Amino acid sequence: MTERLVVVGGDAAGMSAASQARRRRPADDLEIVAFERGRHVSYSACGIPYWIAGDTGGPDALIARTAAEHRDRGIDVRLGTEVTRIDRDAGRVLARDPDGREEWTGYDHLVIATGAVPVRPRIPGIDAPGVFGVQTLDDGEAVLRGLDRAGVRRAVVVGGGYIGVEMAEAMLRHGLDVTLVDRNPQPMTTLDPDMGHLVREALEGLGVTVVSGAAAREVLTDSEGRARAVATDDAEHPADLVVLGLGVRPNTDLAHDAGLPLGTHGGLLTDRSMRVRGTERIWAGGDCVEVLNLVSRALQHIALGTHANKHGRIIGTNVGGGYATFPGVVGTAVSKVCDVEIARTGLKESQARAAGLDFVSAVIESTSRAGYYPQAAPMTVKVLAERGTGRLLGLQIVGREGAAKRVDIGAVALTAGMTVGQMVDLDLGYAPPFSPVWDPVLVAARKAADAVAADTARTAPGAGEVRKPG
Amino acid sequence: MTERLVVVGGDAAGMSAASQARRRRPADDLEIVAFERGRHVSYSACGIPYWIAGDTGGPDALIARTAAEHRDRGIDVRLGTEVTRIDRDAGRVLARDPDGREEWTGYDHLVIATGAVPVRPRIPGIDAPGVFGVQTLDDGEAVLRGLDRAGVRRAVVVGGGYIGVEMAEAMLRHGLDVTLVDRNPQPMTTLDPDMGHLVREALEGLGVTVVSGAAAREVLTDSEGRARAVATDDAEHPADLVVLGLGVRPNTDLAHDAGLPLGTHGGLLTDRSMRVRGTERIWAGGDCVEVLNLVSRALQHIALGTHANKHGRIIGTNVGGGYATFPGVVGTAVSKVCDVEIARTGLKESQARAAGLDFVSAVIESTSRAGYYPQAAPMTVKVLAERGTGRLLGLQIVGREGAAKRVDIGAVALTAGMTVGQMVDLDLGYAPPFSPVWDPVLVAARKAADAVAADTARTAPGAGEVRKPG
Repeated sequence: MTERLVVVGGDAAGMSAASQARRRRPADDLEIVAFERGRHVSYSACGIPYWIAGDTGGPDALIARTAAEHRDRGIDVRLGTEVTRIDRDAGRVLARDPDGREEWTGYDHLVIATGAVPVRPRIPGIDAPGVFGVQTLDDGEAVLRGLDRAGVRRAVVVGGGYIGVEMAEAMLRHGLDVTLVDRNPQPMTTLDPDMGHLVREALEGLGVTVVSGAAAREVLTDSEGRARAVATDDAEHPADLVVLGLGVRPNTDLAHDAGLPLGTHGGLLTDRSMRVRGTERIWAGGDCVEVLNLVSRALQHIALGTHANKHGRIIGTNVGGGYATFPGVVGTAVSKVCDVEIARTGLKESQARAAGLDFVSAVIESTSRAGYYPQAAPMTVKVLAERGTGRLLGLQIVGREGAAKRVDIGAVALTAGMTVGQMVDLDLGYAPPFSPVWDPVLVAARKAADAVAADTARTAPGAGEVRKPG
Repeated sequence: MTERLVVVGGDAAGMSAASQARRRRPADDLEIVAFERGRHVSYSACGIPYWIAGDTGGPDALIARTAAEHRDRGIDVRLGTEVTRIDRDAGRVLARDPDGREEWTGYDHLVIATGAVPVRPRIPGIDAPGVFGVQTLDDGEAVLRGLDRAGVRRAVVVGGGYIGVEMAEAMLRHGLDVTLVDRNPQPMTTLDPDMGHLVREALEGLGVTVVSGAAAREVLTDSEGRARAVATDDAEHPADLVVLGLGVRPNTDLAHDAGLPLGTHGGLLTDRSMRVRGTERIWAGGDCVEVLNLVSRALQHIALGTHANKHGRIIGTNVGGGYATFPGVVGTAVSKVCDVEIARTGLKESQARAAGLDFVSAVIESTSRAGYYPQAAPMTVKVLAERGTGRLLGLQIVGREGAAKRVDIGAVALTAGMTVGQMVDLDLGYAPPFSPVWDPVLVAARKAADAVAADTARTAPGAGEVRKPG
């Protein structure tokens, strides 16, 4: 008998699940219906800042596969159609089509891939014209239209995380004066403050005014109601255009209403096969779920296309009669602002502490290539290693060309549970155009290994202290 | 009582050992004497092709630390002084200084770091003027002088390995017509032939004439005795300049004469602490030793500055009263010819077979960045995985900018003994400027994992075959 797979949300996780299920089960065995409330499926939200910056075409270039292409593969994609209710008892969802008609659709398997929604602070003026998010292709087009207006020369970007710094670059590339308003002491709080400080220096070097430790309190508007400035406690930052880059939170209202289990970060909870906990035929993946961090052993919410694609593929394999699981993440992320590359994996100091892990850290400076080779670019690498065991806990890199993807060395080492001492012995690729004879990651690992040894010697019973007789 | 450390060979391994021992033991505890037969210590031989190409300055830029700098740190460097004999019974070496005087020097610890010597085929004309090696800084200067001669417009490079392709690039950069003469079916035999073929295509695309399957039989000379052509069995290849890039072999005659143990590749055999087997106070490292390949479990000779530096540091730590070991290599190497990047780690097909390992392989094409991002460059990735277990055996990459250092992912995964299935789950850095949403290495691992599963299904008892009743 033909089964039906219903997918809620037509981006990376949802459409990967649908495609993979279709590869494994033909249309006469599995009917697939995918509901997407927006106008597009399978697009790269991560590409939007680069489209706005002018690096890439858009929006078509960012669409990996159109609705028509999915339909050609036997997936019934319903654009502009929002699922408003899940009836778990009856195994059906209620969807509202573009004309406002509501209809129930039954499912044998349900995939919840509702993604994330941008964090939007509830401050006065936040909905004024001239204030933009950067989540959907429509958002991207709106920002570009905003940039086309006459007299636009000042942008305020609110938020200093990945989207914030990427959008700061995009605004710079349009020749605007850019102010980054961020409530944290340093931008890029996915890094430790000392490494975030390097990002701040880089942003300032590019001409961005970085206002740290200052939360946006209000978007001030002009007589026509358009945004004209962002107010913090101390100052007003004039803006012809305001971009919100405050990160995202899981879009799980629908799931919550259906009584599905959410974690402390608001994301759906799944087992390793990406099945929603406590259910038999409901799956979830992508930006709406929480994932296990393999280093801290804690659940996290990480919105990243690469995880969403993996989740979708795993769900599709399982719905398709195969077997696949998602072991978790180590928290890898890379980004750039102009030619400054930023990368991190594992835990930063505060995350390690929160996980009950004590650590030593090491920071080194090196170069991307042999020092004598042209374009050898400086790079700062920070390593966190567990006290005593020397197990790698985290790696952070700020540098230029050739810096960021070195974080993959740490990602694999974390997955394998390596110590920094073991990392020193790694047989990494060496030739003068690619690396100094000691790769910067090895130099950092070596310094961390020395720090672990010194710490062990210093804190061993009897080392440097007088022990009372027993 | 003061001990004496004697180092034979003043390049990467020898001077790293000396420097690290000095860091751990002061001069009144350990006297250090380093003999170097050449005019320089601590230089980057790997940098010579790039110096000749004009990318880097030289020779000074290639010298990491001069003899004078070592002497300032309390290391007695004797340049132009060759050790001609080791008297193990008496614990002393005989050295001949630049004036031809011979003198015995006693040692408490001896480090043999005599490096490697270029393979030089014994063919007629090989010693003619106009034929150049690329091993020492003096060689580099000789090639540059050769290029300065009037009327030089054709170069023949003999050998299609790393040095051969790097020197082909260097000659191209000087505007010469370049012919690469190589006895193997494809250049770059550290790769499988199908991947080597991509290197061949790249070389030809750059304008290099690649003559494969053709060993150099003779260097033909003109009336003045200068090289004028390289003859193979079938043809003569006119040359105003001949460069030998045939690789190197361990320089171990001295060690052999002293009765020290050599392996089948001619390199010294050591234990994991880099102590020469069967000795108590003789250490060896760098290009003159054999190293354990952790994947094949076989000994190999790999001449690479990165290993030499590690060996030296380990020896210096051990002589300095600490404890360090070298676990082995996984066979990682990276190179480039113009903008084509080449990388490999682990075993290629013939190496896997020789190690008794059966495998499946997967080859994929992808891009260095998200497909829609500018400068997304094509990349071919090949993965070898063990049959049945799916354990990663090898990774090969040919691509452009951003391709080669991805081999480090494989290097760490090999070290950790990961399966290709485990690799699919790796949390690698993703953002559009750095990677497609599925990193090319993950795509290759995924295809290899599928191939392992398909092979297992196909060859399982009873699958697709009729079993005879027992």
